[in-house]
Amino acid sequence: QGTRDHPPAYTALRDRLLAAVVTCFKRHGAAAIDTPVLELRETLMGKYGEEAKLIYELQDQGGELLALRYDLTVPFARYLAMNKITNMKRYHIAKVYRRDNPATTRGRYREFYQCDFDIAGQFDPMIPDAECLKIVHEILSDLQLGDFLIKVNDRRILNGIFAVCGIPESKFVTACCTVDKLDKVPWEEVRGEMVGEKGLSPEAADHIGEYVQLHGGLELIERLLQDPKLSQNKLAKEGLGDMKLLFEYLTLFGITGKISFDLSLARGLDYYTGVIFEAVLLQQENEHVEEPVSVGSVAGGGRYDGLVGMFDPKGRKVPCVGVSIGIERIFSILEQRMKASGEKVRTTETQVLVATPHKHLLAARLKLISELWGAGIKAEMLYKKDPKLLKQLQYCEDTGIPLAAIVGEQELTDGVVKLRDVATRVEVRM
Amino acid sequence: QGTRDHPPAYTALRDRLLAAVVTCFKRHGAAAIDTPVLELRETLMGKYGEEAKLIYELQDQGGELLALRYDLTVPFARYLAMNKITNMKRYHIAKVYRRDNPATTRGRYREFYQCDFDIAGQFDPMIPDAECLKIVHEILSDLQLGDFLIKVNDRRILNGIFAVCGIPESKFVTACCTVDKLDKVPWEEVRGEMVGEKGLSPEAADHIGEYVQLHGGLELIERLLQDPKLSQNKLAKEGLGDMKLLFEYLTLFGITGKISFDLSLARGLDYYTGVIFEAVLLQQENEHVEEPVSVGSVAGGGRYDGLVGMFDPKGRKVPCVGVSIGIERIFSILEQRMKASGEKVRTTETQVLVATPHKHLLAARLKLISELWGAGIKAEMLYKKDPKLLKQLQYCEDTGIPLAAIVGEQELTDGVVKLRDVATRVEVRM
Repeated sequence: QGTRDHPPAYTALRDRLLAAVVTCFKRHGAAAIDTPVLELRETLMGKYGEEAKLIYELQDQGGELLALRYDLTVPFARYLAMNKITNMKRYHIAKVYRRDNPATTRGRYREFYQCDFDIAGQFDPMIPDAECLKIVHEILSDLQLGDFLIKVNDRRILNGIFAVCGIPESKFVTACCTVDKLDKVPWEEVRGEMVGEKGLSPEAADHIGEYVQLHGGLELIERLLQDPKLSQNKLAKEGLGDMKLLFEYLTLFGITGKISFDLSLARGLDYYTGVIFEAVLLQQENEHVEEPVSVGSVAGGGRYDGLVGMFDPKGRKVPCVGVSIGIERIFSILEQRMKASGEKVRTTETQVLVATPHKHLLAARLKLISELWGAGIKAEMLYKKDPKLLKQLQYCEDTGIPLAAIVGEQELTDGVVKLRDVATRVEVRM
Repeated sequence: QGTRDHPPAYTALRDRLLAAVVTCFKRHGAAAIDTPVLELRETLMGKYGEEAKLIYELQDQGGELLALRYDLTVPFARYLAMNKITNMKRYHIAKVYRRDNPATTRGRYREFYQCDFDIAGQFDPMIPDAECLKIVHEILSDLQLGDFLIKVNDRRILNGIFAVCGIPESKFVTACCTVDKLDKVPWEEVRGEMVGEKGLSPEAADHIGEYVQLHGGLELIERLLQDPKLSQNKLAKEGLGDMKLLFEYLTLFGITGKISFDLSLARGLDYYTGVIFEAVLLQQENEHVEEPVSVGSVAGGGRYDGLVGMFDPKGRKVPCVGVSIGIERIFSILEQRMKASGEKVRTTETQVLVATPHKHLLAARLKLISELWGAGIKAEMLYKKDPKLLKQLQYCEDTGIPLAAIVGEQELTDGVVKLRDVATRVEVRM
């Protein structure tokens, strides 16, 4: 349940999509690493907040207690700490596992690919963070998925807001989770949950509401930096200062047109400590709607400066920032688009079928195909002793093989091959 | 235990190796599929004989009872049966899981890659089987691993031998397992196990010994086809007839020089029904030994005509033959060779570092690198506001970046970039 086999057409399209992502990661100088699917259970515990219940555990068959990795970020942090690496730019593309309620039509599975790019190391503020956003911008532009928007916020700004609204620090995380729902439900509902379930005062909730419904760009950052309350809060001031720097760098990259400083963005995971971001696709223009509507998140990430330290015996911190590309969601979109267009993906790359026009020529086919393979040519033949020529040409048409190399008695005598263009039926002897 | 992180240098070398294998699989017209790491436990039960105890099981957290896949063959057979596919040539490269005693120095892990190529379908005898052997020959030749030998046998021939030696059919499988040890221990020891543990008569054991110590080529096949006892056994006769055909095809492929019909080859897994084979590397000539000694299996496979039927509600059979490339063993060899030669693998592909010779030029670097990325050039910069030029050039040398694009005040004024060849220190303004 919630997993699936990937047939050839799927795999071919997926490989094309992953290649585009890898090309971008390599363009930015990242190295690839790989970590086991299995992690010690204790490694995963206490890293995912309420989501921890979705971790797959292995049966205790003697030896270590194991679990399947939930994401690629925690294994990366463990990898850095275990190997005492303080400086690394890496990508990792692999499957992760979540015992979630699958929603397969929306591309949500229990086993799915993640494509992560992260920068670890102590650097000057916001330079690696800006590069992560640039990467999201490049990938979503390259894939031509339609219009998109990258929402940016900072955990320090959110915590600052909670503080100035009088929320006790112990409730920051839960308040964060509630705010995070603002992209799916209206403010009134979020406010209801805050006052009801979460037990915040109506005044505090209203006060939070004034902030978290704001979104904009550099001018909003400037305005909040002047905000009499927020500007008094150390965390918020730091966050806003860095956000201003980030926007400066993004301006130099020329991508602020698709970036929105959005105070409602909170993101669920425990481990974020600074900048957070999420990219959403906007409804296509040809769907004739007044305002562009989000059709779901396709990338997300943020800064997690404390995670590596959790795995280091001496608690030594390695600041990190990273991005995860939501390849499954993107794949669903490309797949639907392909179905709609009726385009067919070739699942093999075979260039030529070695064929014979009559019986008793298996030896000739085997010799010729062996020669072609030796020359690096992608070649197939039917696994029949005496296949009919029509069947062989039909196989070319079915599977998209463009050429047939035909050897009959005459060709053998003359020492030639008849090369046939399957589509045009033009034949040349060579 | 028995798993490992793959650091960048490993991953880069592995990706190169896998690319070579995929190139060969695609040259033979295979399509790629992917299946989940998780399988239903019942899918894996009864397919691996005594090895079943090595299967990793997941904890029962509600829902289906799951296990981690043990190989890629059983999932492939399940895939064919579930989707009612009767005809397919596919490859699959993915990790599999075995709770084995790890022997990591010999490349044996609990999580490791398998690279499988299989041909499913009802075809004329031995044509797909010959292609599998051709693929092993191509890959081992391409990778230049040194001299190798591909041993070939047939389960039907082995079973025929056991039958004519008076072994009851119920003991075929266990006799098979014992014979399989002949590549590691001398015949006397194998004989001892047969007569002792397995309870065969000394006469039967001696009789088996006469057969299973034979190896050769076409002339041996011909001799056994004339063998007064074997030629009376239906299974053995079928197997020997097909073996003869196989050698004819391999002769046309020009690869019999590295193929040995070896009656001691048995292979452990339950599901093989016909041809079986295994490739071993031979000790290098420069090690001055009289006779080439096997240093371990690097590929193996065979025919399994009954496995798909086990997953079909109506038991419909789909004959299959396939090969698995032992990529981990091959990797260990390449890695040792690389260490010995002192060759360093580059872990990134960065072409140019964007650098500045003095302070206050971060904006210039960000603008230039953005332009380079936009042009598809792999570029990096240091994440410092004001890095020293020496540090930047040192980074190029450490990571193998061949070029530095340097912008200073003068270059900005002139609208040029100074491009420096890191190795030669030659600079051009452009």
